[in-house]
Amino acid sequence: MSTIKQTTDEDHHLVKEVYQDIRESRNTKYIGNFWKYLAFDPSLLKNIWTEVKNMMVKETIIDKKTKEMIYMAVSITNNCSYCTHSHTATAKKFGMTPEEHSEFLSIVGLAAKTNQIVNGLQVPVDEIFDEDRN
Amino acid sequence: MSTIKQTTDEDHHLVKEVYQDIRESRNTKYIGNFWKYLAFDPSLLKNIWTEVKNMMVKETIIDKKTKEMIYMAVSITNNCSYCTHSHTATAKKFGMTPEEHSEFLSIVGLAAKTNQIVNGLQVPVDEIFDEDRN
Amino acid sequence: MSTIKQTTDEDHHLVKEVYQDIRESRNTKYIGNFWKYLAFDPSLLKNIWTEVKNMMVKETIIDKKTKEMIYMAVSITNNCSYCTHSHTATAKKFGMTPEEHSEFLSIVGLAAKTNQIVNGLQVPVDEIFDEDRN
Amino acid sequence: MSTIKQTTDEDHHLVKEVYQDIRESRNTKYIGNFWKYLAFDPSLLKNIWTEVKNMMVKETIIDKKTKEMIYMAVSITNNCSYCTHSHTATAKKFGMTPEEHSEFLSIVGLAAKTNQIVNGLQVPVDEIFDEDRN
Amino acid sequence: MSTIKQTTDEDHHLVKEVYQDIRESRNTKYIGNFWKYLAFDPSLLKNIWTEVKNMMVKETIIDKKTKEMIYMAVSITNNCSYCTHSHTATAKKFGMTPEEHSEFLSIVGLAAKTNQIVNGLQVPVDEIFDEDRN
Amino acid sequence: MSTIKQTTDEDHHLVKEVYQDIRESRNTKYIGNFWKYLAFDPSLLKNIWTEVKNMMVKETIIDKKTKEMIYMAVSITNNCSYCTHSHTATAKKFGMTPEEHSEFLSIVGLAAKTNQIVNGLQVPVDEIFDEDRN
Repeated sequence: MSTIKQTTDEDHHLVKEVYQDIRESRNTKYIGNFWKYLAFDPSLLKNIWTEVKNMMVKETIIDKKTKEMIYMAVSITNNCSYCTHSHTATAKKFGMTPEEHSEFLSIVGLAAKTNQIVNGLQVPVDEIFDEDRN
Repeated sequence: MSTIKQTTDEDHHLVKEVYQDIRESRNTKYIGNFWKYLAFDPSLLKNIWTEVKNMMVKETIIDKKTKEMIYMAVSITNNCSYCTHSHTATAKKFGMTPEEHSEFLSIVGLAAKTNQIVNGLQVPVDEIFDEDRN
Repeated sequence: MSTIKQTTDEDHHLVKEVYQDIRESRNTKYIGNFWKYLAFDPSLLKNIWTEVKNMMVKETIIDKKTKEMIYMAVSITNNCSYCTHSHTATAKKFGMTPEEHSEFLSIVGLAAKTNQIVNGLQVPVDEIFDEDRN
Repeated sequence: MSTIKQTTDEDHHLVKEVYQDIRESRNTKYIGNFWKYLAFDPSLLKNIWTEVKNMMVKETIIDKKTKEMIYMAVSITNNCSYCTHSHTATAKKFGMTPEEHSEFLSIVGLAAKTNQIVNGLQVPVDEIFDEDRN
Repeated sequence: MSTIKQTTDEDHHLVKEVYQDIRESRNTKYIGNFWKYLAFDPSLLKNIWTEVKNMMVKETIIDKKTKEMIYMAVSITNNCSYCTHSHTATAKKFGMTPEEHSEFLSIVGLAAKTNQIVNGLQVPVDEIFDEDRN
Repeated sequence: MSTIKQTTDEDHHLVKEVYQDIRESRNTKYIGNFWKYLAFDPSLLKNIWTEVKNMMVKETIIDKKTKEMIYMAVSITNNCSYCTHSHTATAKKFGMTPEEHSEFLSIVGLAAKTNQIVNGLQVPVDEIFDEDRN
């Protein structure tokens, strides 16, 4: 079920180009559903893939496993089912162990719990946290 | 502004005990506002501190800087101002550089963006992601 | 799967009345699932339908396509799957083209991304934005 | 700071009528900021007040203290600062004790924590919960 | 579909212990999916069950039906499908009538609506709500 | 209060370039706080501004007022205070009248309300909405 028809025909030159880049960068033949639905607008597909590739596929300062765990934390908090599935799978591919996965779940659970309690109490922010002070 | 009066009197034995533990575990004299407001119910204070200490202050599998960045990701997505401030400060204390902070912000921004687009398209989850398939 | 049994019997006078009004106002025989589940409490069904009809079905200042796109933006951000599906379908009925749909998705994605970065930085609101100043 | 100028002139007949009704129904002279800002559109003010009055001020099946605690739970989860403040104050007026407030905070904290863990695990819903089965 | 394999073997001593406690405390043979997936890490299972049991299964100050309705309010606002299903079922078991369920839905709907309007107007919090004043 | 020091020195060549472009594209001398904080990482500033400019400042298919109202809807639902302020101001600059603003608020309020009720009922999505059905 989706709000856009899945693109199965990969003939558009931009779609072809992006799919080939996904396959090469990730060393796989598999194209995930996200890319197959995004392909309804080849330019949008190209833009999103470029941003994802630059941030998540290329080597940057933060290591790949950590980057995926940060991505997972946002996706879980936003309750994006697809994103939680795909980024958990990628984090595992980059070495996240079951022990780390469990600890990660405890952290995101604890964070959500204290977020709620802080919001319920409406705790004022300590002046000490302000980076603009003197 | 808060929904509970801040506790300034630290005479309750549980409050005393927790504050002493916070000061020792974190090697600081400073007690953040969260703990000063939570102290309206000393048992709740004790419970929350114990959970935070076990997960975030003690050595566990995931390193402390990464744990704080995961906590930040949830707090930002839930838009908890106090929590974003306090955990960003702690992540910096544990070594998060301005370059990592910037990259972190790009990741949580990108994650939120793709979460929205996935939700807008209602992309179905690929069967391949199901850990229960044999 | 739902938390309330779907109402298939339309004999209650309020249910009958609302369903007839839905069919006439929307010029269709089809009654969506939302209304079939809401019918477990005919007064609630009547109240919600009246509010939806007055705001979304009747002619008001903002045109119908734009109203549906605003509704979609909220539903996507709240990740309400049913609501995203039904309001995307209605926006298309009122003329939203694939090109507009794609641009819309880019906007809601960009908004979520900058929301996150603003929250991460805890940017203070400019005085200039305050409508109560002088 | 607000996106609309606060209405201080109460001369519009609808504004006058609503404010009088608020003062009488709540047995107070005080008009909260929400109503002072909503007054920029007297019809909107009237509509919202009517809905709030019917649901929250009038006697209904659920008692007033419980209704306010449900309202608080939503407002805290949405992190609406104004709403959390005003509904916590009202819940206290209707008898919520500090002990109940503390227990309430533990419940909303625990709920947010398990919500996150369920989302992280993507736990499938048990068939037994489906009200439409057989 | 889930991100962790469901645990069907209950041989681990902690899993056994928790499941037996669930069955006795709730007077049922049925173990919900949440517990079957959490069992991938028996200590996590034990921790979460202990917290849920102390807060939701044991007698505390707030009655069980009200506690479940508060839990439902958070779960619905976070759009956690599993949690909404399971806690609605439990609230019904503890006596929530269809009339109360309907009224509950009207309250959580109204709260979300006014949260949005307050956020849209950016209504400043009244000084009168500050528990720290004088 | 912010988690990063505001950049007041505009000497970095990228910062200079972006600020000049903002001033020219928007025909104003004023640089909003978002850009002054983003400037801690000139490349991030440049990337975000480019995306915002292409989508929101340039002429595209959807008119500028509507685009700002869609942006507002997301920002309000995410409760991003800064974003709600700045995009409401821009929508007004592009012609949003007080009447449209009021109607907009009613729509985002109604959407949030029905999102909650749909989530509470866990209404299944109608097959008719699936764009992949043939």
